[in-house]
Amino acid sequence: MTLPAPWRVRHLPLLLLLLAAPLLALANSDPLPSWKDGPSKQGILAFVQAVTTQGSPDYVKAAERIAVFDNDGTLWSEQPAYFEVLFAFDEIKRLAPQHPEWKTRQPFQAVLEGDHQALAASGMHGLLQIIGATHTGISSEAFIDNARRWLAEARHPKTGRPFNQMIYQPMLEMLDYLRSQDFKTYIVSGGDTAFMRAFAESAYGIPPEQVIGSNFVTQWQFQDGQPSILRTAKLAHNDDGPGKPESIDGIIGRRPLLAFGNSDGDLQMLQWTAAGSGKRFMALVHHTDAAREWAYDRKSQVGRLDQALDQAQQHGWTLVDMAAEWRRIYPFEPLAPEQAQ
Amino acid sequence: MTLPAPWRVRHLPLLLLLLAAPLLALANSDPLPSWKDGPSKQGILAFVQAVTTQGSPDYVKAAERIAVFDNDGTLWSEQPAYFEVLFAFDEIKRLAPQHPEWKTRQPFQAVLEGDHQALAASGMHGLLQIIGATHTGISSEAFIDNARRWLAEARHPKTGRPFNQMIYQPMLEMLDYLRSQDFKTYIVSGGDTAFMRAFAESAYGIPPEQVIGSNFVTQWQFQDGQPSILRTAKLAHNDDGPGKPESIDGIIGRRPLLAFGNSDGDLQMLQWTAAGSGKRFMALVHHTDAAREWAYDRKSQVGRLDQALDQAQQHGWTLVDMAAEWRRIYPFEPLAPEQAQ
Repeated sequence: MTLPAPWRVRHLPLLLLLLAAPLLALANSDPLPSWKDGPSKQGILAFVQAVTTQGSPDYVKAAERIAVFDNDGTLWSEQPAYFEVLFAFDEIKRLAPQHPEWKTRQPFQAVLEGDHQALAASGMHGLLQIIGATHTGISSEAFIDNARRWLAEARHPKTGRPFNQMIYQPMLEMLDYLRSQDFKTYIVSGGDTAFMRAFAESAYGIPPEQVIGSNFVTQWQFQDGQPSILRTAKLAHNDDGPGKPESIDGIIGRRPLLAFGNSDGDLQMLQWTAAGSGKRFMALVHHTDAAREWAYDRKSQVGRLDQALDQAQQHGWTLVDMAAEWRRIYPFEPLAPEQAQ
Repeated sequence: MTLPAPWRVRHLPLLLLLLAAPLLALANSDPLPSWKDGPSKQGILAFVQAVTTQGSPDYVKAAERIAVFDNDGTLWSEQPAYFEVLFAFDEIKRLAPQHPEWKTRQPFQAVLEGDHQALAASGMHGLLQIIGATHTGISSEAFIDNARRWLAEARHPKTGRPFNQMIYQPMLEMLDYLRSQDFKTYIVSGGDTAFMRAFAESAYGIPPEQVIGSNFVTQWQFQDGQPSILRTAKLAHNDDGPGKPESIDGIIGRRPLLAFGNSDGDLQMLQWTAAGSGKRFMALVHHTDAAREWAYDRKSQVGRLDQALDQAQQHGWTLVDMAAEWRRIYPFEPLAPEQAQ
């Protein structure tokens, strides 16, 4: 169809400009503005371009673009303790009036009195009792309500912020960027699945059906014509270490193209990803920033990164140096200058 | 921007026609051509319109449009026996040379000799031994390969067709239609998850991560630097009856808007769906067609529909009368006339 002459002459440049503007904006916009232009950023951009460019030897069709992320220490902070453990402690305090026996029974007494020594002495067994008392014996829906109430009310001891604001801005940009390139982004993490679902959609844009975590055996209840799903005290799956590739295979049923973790608990997930055919991207967030976040790795009680650090170095997996490569940590912080430190 | 007069006058009708054509085509096309214009078709169309029309009091945003489907007897046939059981029998025959002891050991001997009486005598325990021998002790990937090989080679005893062609054309249209309206379609079925993943994507357009079924405990293996996921003999989850809402809650984490089943094993999934807030759609495929498929319900050994039939009638859930409402059963059949029988 030929345009009439007067319109063609007078309006074509304007039309072209209108058409081109969004394309130019796209080309100029940096999908990862909170990342310095370092090796991690260059690596991720090059990887995504390779697997999403049609005709590239590494091209992968959209349906198979699965990206998996650990949560604690990878998408949000995990110090001074896993936030879910802090939630459990707060829940013990909230529920104490209904459990007068806790005043004189460990490990509950230790939580109520803030007795760190007695708490530490109760060990893993004590922690499991606390998790059991706060995470089970109620319906799925009631548990998610409890987690949401806590997220609205509780504040982090160091920053004074709600816990669901202590998420990593560079990782939020990474998630958005991957989704814009038709990746399906999953959480695969040791935390309780329902606990993470309480905030994953609003904090990360990750819907409940893409949150995979540890979980308890549940039990269908049908009382007075009303069904509910009861969380029993029996652990069904521990989504840590080898449990991660097991749940990826069981629930997703596709090998991830990209896997992001930060600790030894992510090693098998990264190995499983790396062993897939074609190009894959494996990365660890390395907590190197004592000033803006925390610095820890091989000797930390929380989020220990030791074996996986050796493996990353040996296999050339990406190690994100938080202090050197991130221009900010949390969404509520200003952007640091671009120049390298 | 005002169009120059000559163009406006001469080309506007043509332009409008060009713009309108696809809309007209859309309005005229029937998304469910294999369904007669009966109560089930009208019900599903009215439901989808109600929950997808912005401004409707029943509107549900796209992210929450979850639709769940049983597989055996709902998306494909299940007679004369569950197809997965026929797969297991064929696998016993294929694997027999590696197990000479099976020649004289039940229930294997019964399968190898086609001895239906001895097989029936071995009961549920015998069936579990057959499932164990064919479904476990191998990696996830190897098992899916076995299922794919069988689907390519095996033929149904009545129709002579590959089993993955014995899928219901009306349900394929339903799945496509729901996806076109931004529903996420899931299988939630008693079959083995990996077995169903072997064909769900090509047969139904349902990707592996939207297939939920029964599964065995798996175990991470790492030998000679090569990881694999071993299927152990321990059942992890029986995705039948109450197991269905349990897995929906555990894996999807959202209440379905729509649930489709065909037997008592789907009752709790339908109850769970029905108990959600707002408008929901619950339906059962009723096998009423002895001529084109099979006719069975309250007394069938396979896919018994008894309690759920009572509940459907009591609560006004949709009962799809296969003989009266489907213009064809399988994709390879011609379309029957539209007029009611």
